[in-house]
Amino acid sequence: MTIEKFSEISQPFKVILLDSYGVLRNHDGLIPGVVECVNRLRAEGKHLRVLTNNAARSPAAAAKNLKKYGLRGIPAAEIITSGATTRHFLQYKIRTGKVVYLGTPQSAEYIIGAGLEAVHISEVDLDDLTDIKAVAFLDDEGYDKNVDVNHVINLLRHCQVPVVVANTDLLYPVSKDNVALATGSVARLVEYVLGRRFIQFGKPASQMFQFAFESLLRDFPDLTHADVLMVGDTLHTDILGGNTFGVSTALVLSGNTRAERAETEISSSGIIPDFIIQSIGA
Amino acid sequence: MTIEKFSEISQPFKVILLDSYGVLRNHDGLIPGVVECVNRLRAEGKHLRVLTNNAARSPAAAAKNLKKYGLRGIPAAEIITSGATTRHFLQYKIRTGKVVYLGTPQSAEYIIGAGLEAVHISEVDLDDLTDIKAVAFLDDEGYDKNVDVNHVINLLRHCQVPVVVANTDLLYPVSKDNVALATGSVARLVEYVLGRRFIQFGKPASQMFQFAFESLLRDFPDLTHADVLMVGDTLHTDILGGNTFGVSTALVLSGNTRAERAETEISSSGIIPDFIIQSIGA
Amino acid sequence: MTIEKFSEISQPFKVILLDSYGVLRNHDGLIPGVVECVNRLRAEGKHLRVLTNNAARSPAAAAKNLKKYGLRGIPAAEIITSGATTRHFLQYKIRTGKVVYLGTPQSAEYIIGAGLEAVHISEVDLDDLTDIKAVAFLDDEGYDKNVDVNHVINLLRHCQVPVVVANTDLLYPVSKDNVALATGSVARLVEYVLGRRFIQFGKPASQMFQFAFESLLRDFPDLTHADVLMVGDTLHTDILGGNTFGVSTALVLSGNTRAERAETEISSSGIIPDFIIQSIGA
Amino acid sequence: MTIEKFSEISQPFKVILLDSYGVLRNHDGLIPGVVECVNRLRAEGKHLRVLTNNAARSPAAAAKNLKKYGLRGIPAAEIITSGATTRHFLQYKIRTGKVVYLGTPQSAEYIIGAGLEAVHISEVDLDDLTDIKAVAFLDDEGYDKNVDVNHVINLLRHCQVPVVVANTDLLYPVSKDNVALATGSVARLVEYVLGRRFIQFGKPASQMFQFAFESLLRDFPDLTHADVLMVGDTLHTDILGGNTFGVSTALVLSGNTRAERAETEISSSGIIPDFIIQSIGA
Repeated sequence: MTIEKFSEISQPFKVILLDSYGVLRNHDGLIPGVVECVNRLRAEGKHLRVLTNNAARSPAAAAKNLKKYGLRGIPAAEIITSGATTRHFLQYKIRTGKVVYLGTPQSAEYIIGAGLEAVHISEVDLDDLTDIKAVAFLDDEGYDKNVDVNHVINLLRHCQVPVVVANTDLLYPVSKDNVALATGSVARLVEYVLGRRFIQFGKPASQMFQFAFESLLRDFPDLTHADVLMVGDTLHTDILGGNTFGVSTALVLSGNTRAERAETEISSSGIIPDFIIQSIGA
Repeated sequence: MTIEKFSEISQPFKVILLDSYGVLRNHDGLIPGVVECVNRLRAEGKHLRVLTNNAARSPAAAAKNLKKYGLRGIPAAEIITSGATTRHFLQYKIRTGKVVYLGTPQSAEYIIGAGLEAVHISEVDLDDLTDIKAVAFLDDEGYDKNVDVNHVINLLRHCQVPVVVANTDLLYPVSKDNVALATGSVARLVEYVLGRRFIQFGKPASQMFQFAFESLLRDFPDLTHADVLMVGDTLHTDILGGNTFGVSTALVLSGNTRAERAETEISSSGIIPDFIIQSIGA
Repeated sequence: MTIEKFSEISQPFKVILLDSYGVLRNHDGLIPGVVECVNRLRAEGKHLRVLTNNAARSPAAAAKNLKKYGLRGIPAAEIITSGATTRHFLQYKIRTGKVVYLGTPQSAEYIIGAGLEAVHISEVDLDDLTDIKAVAFLDDEGYDKNVDVNHVINLLRHCQVPVVVANTDLLYPVSKDNVALATGSVARLVEYVLGRRFIQFGKPASQMFQFAFESLLRDFPDLTHADVLMVGDTLHTDILGGNTFGVSTALVLSGNTRAERAETEISSSGIIPDFIIQSIGA
Repeated sequence: MTIEKFSEISQPFKVILLDSYGVLRNHDGLIPGVVECVNRLRAEGKHLRVLTNNAARSPAAAAKNLKKYGLRGIPAAEIITSGATTRHFLQYKIRTGKVVYLGTPQSAEYIIGAGLEAVHISEVDLDDLTDIKAVAFLDDEGYDKNVDVNHVINLLRHCQVPVVVANTDLLYPVSKDNVALATGSVARLVEYVLGRRFIQFGKPASQMFQFAFESLLRDFPDLTHADVLMVGDTLHTDILGGNTFGVSTALVLSGNTRAERAETEISSSGIIPDFIIQSIGA
């Protein structure tokens, strides 16, 4: 396993896609050297996009959050959340009517932003399902798992509508040692008991990569997949997603994947990054 | 699809194993003709056992419940719950120490009955896991799914002990039209996010069949699998379990499997009962 | 279930994506009315692309084949095969070296066309794996399943390289009543025994949709997903893939999905087309 | 991870169940000390049974094979193969008619021994499926995987009968470094493409444990699960099967599970043996 320097491998690429948690920051705050790295990439004329599995807050709120940590160089327009690709789907595929959601009021902004009516799962009356056009799993907070998961299962047994999952992550860190169930786990459970597969957003699914690539392609019609590097800390989301989308991938060791486990995890999963680097700031 | 009469197919068998919900009773009360059927089987000298996927109450409480509905002929000694096979496992494999459980205080009786100390998941301190010897998923009630599911996930990430699931049913009916998540679903979710498989009790697993067969074998050493008929209303538990254990199986249409769907479900699942009957009381 | 007319639903769309088998032709030859339909769509100025899960022949060979059946209006440049998206991946991600393949010599053209060296699985010496950069499952024919499947399993146990599956279909029709294992099944078996997930091409994966959309976007930068309709006969590939990519979808009843089964299959799978039509020629 | 001595842990048990490959012998021949160990267990009055996932040869042939390697002390009557439990199932559940099989002529003896007619898959005429009562996957050899796997898939699409898998192992070693697909893999592929689950024999399924326990129970009605120790080299078959059956388990490091990997594999799988020993002969 060769560990390379980010400043050396990033040269040939015109576009750098960056995961947020584990690449730009972690539970301790900003990863050392990240501000300098972003400044250098800007100076070199590279296009940046942050791709984050998150439907709990808007790109604007995510940009504000990075600023709070000390990273001012990433405007909201360069942040692509899995919530934003979900909103895009709702806007083009659902168009009108009610979307039932599991999540916080902030996460519901992605439904409202698509011009649709957001109805919290707890407000659904199973005897009147008129005009419900879709169901969205947006966030792991904002509802009661003792009653609302059963409620959505019964809703979906009675009502045949598309279901979207805005973030397929299974777990997320809540402290150095502990984790909590993310939205993807709750959705996976409902899929399993119903014997169905929902429409999934968030890496490794390709919509966020597409979103970034298509938006750049409108300005730079000569862009190809060979011009793009995805940088992330998680094999099953960032690296698998980037590999499948056909762009180059770099695994950082500043997040989920620890240096001493990287080789075993790559080999047992078969998800192989093109490069391994310590951190983008190192 | 030929529908036969129970009184005609039951003749050759010395032992009749019966599921409870859907065979003896349903959400409306006792299934018509069940009292007469049990009396007839007794008169014919057949041995009966009720096999029920349930760790929420003891065999004694289950017998009392059947009596309440009007069926007096089934003593507690003839009721085998998935909780009882779980208790048997804990007694022989774990032997001493603490067993952490998710469930009601009544369900914890199966741990206490095995001579072990029952600790509710909410009482576990992740900083002191001393003497925890096993984890048991007993019931879908008695804990808060908003916090205790995360708690057991973190416990199992820090502590390498056997995990048992006392009832692998995924859903159970709460009214004519609606269902709720059963213990098996919560356990399946935890298995999925941890990448592990737990030890599973309850049909289709074979322990309840074994328990019934071995107990009869001690008294009747000549008994063979050909002497036994399992009667149930669910293909994936009763019929699959009976088929795999090597005994004859009869599907009743008085519970989960509706007459108009039976043929399709048999054919698409490949789980084929030896007989199909309307109900044991018909 | 409302069955609509294709000529009425196709109006608002600028781009029509068509599956081949089941939409343009079936085992009996061309589906009636297809030639007239394609002519009408051309006259209306719509852009067409055929998306076919096939790595057994080139787009040129596929166009020739449609001509043989009587459909002259589809040039090779408008046919996107899953083999072509696989070639694109190999070209941008692998770049140089040897690619081991399971398939016919024709399927290997997709490797050679990417500027790489194609090595048939039967020619691999497990004691010299130098310079092998990827493995590709291309076709279900062209190798001996008695020995070559074991050979690729042992190769992948010794050699950590990306693996691509050029067509994830599990079965394909060989006559009116019978089917055969497609490439996707063989790959799935190898994934299963190795505990890995390979990179998958072919609907429902999004690369073919992207390929079509990005190529049109270079010429028409204002194009959006709302301008696109995918037409296919299979829920799990055409409709799921189109829905996930965020374009409109129409299920035809002229192929895999029979009219009398459509409603049940939609409802049990939860894969919901925006439209249902008899055939594009009706 | 504490490694104990077999002679010390075996004391409290009246019955010792032993896996064959990896416990008694491996690809080099008999494991050192095995003859002495078996003699000692006999002298101590313990009951022995060998439980082997194998339907390729009869217990008599397996006993002869052990003798050839130098182990004379295991008579055929103490060897339980997964083929024997399959035969038991066919005898009690199928009773009469034709059983289609995939395997060698030797493996078909298990069908003939159950009083049924064995029909090789290659001899099946899809236009005349009269009197076919079951399908059995017996061995990975004895048929052509290029044509017979498709043949059994089409047979099962047209004919609704029980399917049994006599050995669910996925891979088996063919040399120090290489493996081959076992019967279980071929069956798993067919299950997957048909969306069905077959009836499975061989560890970790419980039938072989039951078979051993019930046969001893007829002679020793006081026997309990606490009297039994299962010794094996594979976590997912021997140890999982023994744990689920509720008997004590000992993992040996003389076969599949290498000492340096044991701790990681136990911890990641959650399959926890009661004891770990170097070998039964050490």
